[in-house]
Amino acid sequence: MAEDGKRPLDALEKARDKRIIVKVKPQGDQEEPREIVGTLNAFDLHLNLWLEDAEKNEDGKTTKFGTVVIRGDNVLFVSPE
Amino acid sequence: MAEDGKRPLDALEKARDKRIIVKVKPQGDQEEPREIVGTLNAFDLHLNLWLEDAEKNEDGKTTKFGTVVIRGDNVLFVSPE
Amino acid sequence: MAEDGKRPLDALEKARDKRIIVKVKPQGDQEEPREIVGTLNAFDLHLNLWLEDAEKNEDGKTTKFGTVVIRGDNVLFVSPE
Amino acid sequence: MAEDGKRPLDALEKARDKRIIVKVKPQGDQEEPREIVGTLNAFDLHLNLWLEDAEKNEDGKTTKFGTVVIRGDNVLFVSPE
Amino acid sequence: MAEDGKRPLDALEKARDKRIIVKVKPQGDQEEPREIVGTLNAFDLHLNLWLEDAEKNEDGKTTKFGTVVIRGDNVLFVSPE
Amino acid sequence: MAEDGKRPLDALEKARDKRIIVKVKPQGDQEEPREIVGTLNAFDLHLNLWLEDAEKNEDGKTTKFGTVVIRGDNVLFVSPE
Amino acid sequence: MAEDGKRPLDALEKARDKRIIVKVKPQGDQEEPREIVGTLNAFDLHLNLWLEDAEKNEDGKTTKFGTVVIRGDNVLFVSPE
Repeated sequence: MAEDGKRPLDALEKARDKRIIVKVKPQGDQEEPREIVGTLNAFDLHLNLWLEDAEKNEDGKTTKFGTVVIRGDNVLFVSPE
Repeated sequence: MAEDGKRPLDALEKARDKRIIVKVKPQGDQEEPREIVGTLNAFDLHLNLWLEDAEKNEDGKTTKFGTVVIRGDNVLFVSPE
Repeated sequence: MAEDGKRPLDALEKARDKRIIVKVKPQGDQEEPREIVGTLNAFDLHLNLWLEDAEKNEDGKTTKFGTVVIRGDNVLFVSPE
Repeated sequence: MAEDGKRPLDALEKARDKRIIVKVKPQGDQEEPREIVGTLNAFDLHLNLWLEDAEKNEDGKTTKFGTVVIRGDNVLFVSPE
Repeated sequence: MAEDGKRPLDALEKARDKRIIVKVKPQGDQEEPREIVGTLNAFDLHLNLWLEDAEKNEDGKTTKFGTVVIRGDNVLFVSPE
Repeated sequence: MAEDGKRPLDALEKARDKRIIVKVKPQGDQEEPREIVGTLNAFDLHLNLWLEDAEKNEDGKTTKFGTVVIRGDNVLFVSPE
Repeated sequence: MAEDGKRPLDALEKARDKRIIVKVKPQGDQEEPREIVGTLNAFDLHLNLWLEDAEKNEDGKTTKFGTVVIRGDNVLFVSPE
């Protein structure tokens, strides 16, 4: 799509094996996006994401998930930590 | 999609026959995601999931479902227990 | 998708002609999923479901629908009774 | 999809030219599904439905629509009357 | 899809150049579907609709839009006036 | 789709380089559709729209956006001014 | 799609390496669209966007995100700053 060949998902390739922040879309009655942090192990065209050592930090409380596979349609944006 | 061939759904292959946590998207007027736990029997590209011995633990109450097929578009994330 | 050939919809093949519980996604302003019970007559890749002798049990009241075709995108999960 | 060749939409073929109930998904701020009744004239793979002599019965009031084409993605389920 | 070749969109072919009612899905915080009336000039498989002399009648007030192209995924149902 | 070859997006071809009104779907907690006005520079099959000199007029206040690319799935309808 | 070959995403090609405003759809219980500003590094057909030096300005507070990949289905519109 880009005249210089760069594609948005190339940014994820650069973030592989690094800690990333995943902003999850607010859904149902939620007002704010949620945030999951983890080490990016793999991703695909749908922005499905395989994270290791994933956790959620909310209201000063950390919830550890370990390995997670996030379904891409829940993703608002991804950002290297 | 990944230069090293790893794909997010490979993480589910590793979780086959193991207990997994499925976080279900909050929908309608729901505020929080719901959680279904079960043994992963099969999955597909859409993240449709076949679980055995599935159950829901909410407010200290366990509801047993036995076999369930969860439609993939309801999935927020999947995580090996 | 599965190395051993098992697919989530195979679980529905095993449930054919049996009573199944269909949890319908909460939508609009609904808080809780609804439940339709019926005998599984046919299904397809989209999880469209043809049930016979279908009914809804809510608040102690049973509503009988007879034959129903449920559009798959409304399905949260399916579970043999 | 079915080993015996039966598909969910075959149930609609059997309902052609008969009165059917169409439960419409609750959307926006709606709490309950709405109901449109009519004679099934034609349908397609998306569950788009062409009804004749269609009407809505709500709170004791009947609204007549005559011919309607309902877009399939609004359909919760269809049931022969 | 139909054994007799009839398809739901054939009903729109019969309504070409005639006045039709378009019920628009309730979205966001809306409770009731909205209604746009106009002369059907063209339509496509997605139920995108090109109307001429379109107008909205709500609470006794008429808003004239003239030419409109309605995106199909907003359509609840279409009905010849 | 139309026997006479007319398609809904042909109406946009006629509106190229002219001022158009884009009604944006109400989303999240919004009750009313929003309106963006601009000169139609280009469009595609998804109803993605490239407008120049775009602006929003709400509650007597005008917000100027200049060039905008509106993602098609947000569009309720388009109407030449 | 356009007789003169212009496509909406060409506007993004012109905005490459420039600061752009991304209006994010209101979702869940949100009333207003959110805004992320950043330098456009790459985009694709789905309007997935790779921004550098991205930030959010809300209620007089700036939150810096650095690199972000925004999933296209969250985009309401994009506008060069």
